[in-house]
Amino acid sequence: MRRPEARSSPASSTAFGLPVRVYYQDTDAGGVVFHAAYLHYFERARTEWLRRLGFLLPALARNSGILFIVRELRVSYARPALLDDLLVITVGVEHLGRAQFTLTQQARRDTEVLVHASVNLACVQTVDLKPARLPDALIAAVQAQPLEAGR
Amino acid sequence: MRRPEARSSPASSTAFGLPVRVYYQDTDAGGVVFHAAYLHYFERARTEWLRRLGFLLPALARNSGILFIVRELRVSYARPALLDDLLVITVGVEHLGRAQFTLTQQARRDTEVLVHASVNLACVQTVDLKPARLPDALIAAVQAQPLEAGR
Amino acid sequence: MRRPEARSSPASSTAFGLPVRVYYQDTDAGGVVFHAAYLHYFERARTEWLRRLGFLLPALARNSGILFIVRELRVSYARPALLDDLLVITVGVEHLGRAQFTLTQQARRDTEVLVHASVNLACVQTVDLKPARLPDALIAAVQAQPLEAGR
Amino acid sequence: MRRPEARSSPASSTAFGLPVRVYYQDTDAGGVVFHAAYLHYFERARTEWLRRLGFLLPALARNSGILFIVRELRVSYARPALLDDLLVITVGVEHLGRAQFTLTQQARRDTEVLVHASVNLACVQTVDLKPARLPDALIAAVQAQPLEAGR
Repeated sequence: MRRPEARSSPASSTAFGLPVRVYYQDTDAGGVVFHAAYLHYFERARTEWLRRLGFLLPALARNSGILFIVRELRVSYARPALLDDLLVITVGVEHLGRAQFTLTQQARRDTEVLVHASVNLACVQTVDLKPARLPDALIAAVQAQPLEAGR
Repeated sequence: MRRPEARSSPASSTAFGLPVRVYYQDTDAGGVVFHAAYLHYFERARTEWLRRLGFLLPALARNSGILFIVRELRVSYARPALLDDLLVITVGVEHLGRAQFTLTQQARRDTEVLVHASVNLACVQTVDLKPARLPDALIAAVQAQPLEAGR
Repeated sequence: MRRPEARSSPASSTAFGLPVRVYYQDTDAGGVVFHAAYLHYFERARTEWLRRLGFLLPALARNSGILFIVRELRVSYARPALLDDLLVITVGVEHLGRAQFTLTQQARRDTEVLVHASVNLACVQTVDLKPARLPDALIAAVQAQPLEAGR
Repeated sequence: MRRPEARSSPASSTAFGLPVRVYYQDTDAGGVVFHAAYLHYFERARTEWLRRLGFLLPALARNSGILFIVRELRVSYARPALLDDLLVITVGVEHLGRAQFTLTQQARRDTEVLVHASVNLACVQTVDLKPARLPDALIAAVQAQPLEAGR
């Protein structure tokens, strides 16, 4: 398992970040954000990160016949987020393959990392969910990102 | 607005019922079940009610090219359900049309009705979500139910 | 039940609106947004509308010992929202009582109303969920809104 | 990272299992179960496993002032579950500490493991979410399980 030190990687402070607000719908009777809600936050941030790179999920499905599915994830919960917290959900590239890639994602409150995740996504064909190569343009767009490429 | 008296309809005590347990995932920081969670309970009960009648949603989609979508719902929340409560979610037929039907659904804890709903569902084609007639066999199966037919 | 004409009420075009994006997490295997997901959108918009009025839910709970719970809702689904749609979720005041209020909420895509809802919320004490009066400052803030007050 | 071989551990076939049905609410527009939905299934199974051992979450909160929070999780998605699938969600003990424990959980369809997870849970005080020792009775109950103890 990867060492938690990766969390304080200097590059990660320059990662893409999506602000998300914590609502009652995200909390549970324990008074904090339900652990699965972070996966929803992470998915929103990944989608917006792809949009920033120029890729829209419906267009990828319709025109390229592909979608991304989560193949593996590791999540560490350090501190709970609370109702009405304003979080920033970050996305950084940990590894980029030909048919899959791994993102580092965090839920932060100010400078504090509440939750840290490593999410491996496979590129698959929409018709049969069989592995597909990542679009060259997507690979190029990811590699063109100065800060992420420097990791 | 419909009168709450409808709740105490004698026939409803004979309606189909699905037991569901309340987990943390269903609650919010207010300490009770989140209001939208009941819609999840109701969908589960409707699906099991259809199964009891002999209809499976994937088969209806694949063989008949139809699915049911919620077109209108009215929900009254009388009392909150709590963590670990064992509820029974009921399904009764309120109205049966040619391309849509309305179900009465309740979330009960013992003899107490916590939440009461009226859910109108449209039968639509999977390809374009346009209205479709309900399968004759489904209409017949609903009408053959002695207790519901007696309403 | 209120007439659907209320949807095209001119005042509603001036209601508070929160943009929300549709992600995979909000959709179902029918290819459209799951009906209960709109309740999540509505809750987010209500919370941001209250924030705009100057009221934060954690502060209301901690300082005033109150929270708002959904007591009744009516939702009409006219057209489905799709993956990656950018919706605007509106909030308008339909009725303001002493211990409860009713909001009109819509999910719009451009000028189109996809989903229309009427949501009645009760103000209750956090300790026992018993009815509580709405804070005077909240009533004043709602009444001070020129457009909503004009309805 | 732990090796996937752990999945075919012979002991795991004797683990506690909770049947769960896949509904539309669990799926997404990709046509399969949304990845975060499995975390909901896992939570339900953990709760029922605790109930089987004689421990109810509300009683633990009220009488012992403790609750369990997810501290770390690793999930591997091998094959997608589909609408209306009947899954069995298993729970086995991977490690038992003084204030935390790790469960192995799987989502199976017939003999096939669709999703495999390792979930580390911390026992914390409800008042401040600070670490608390697991109740001795819970440790004893887990250790008394013949098959799990044999791992």
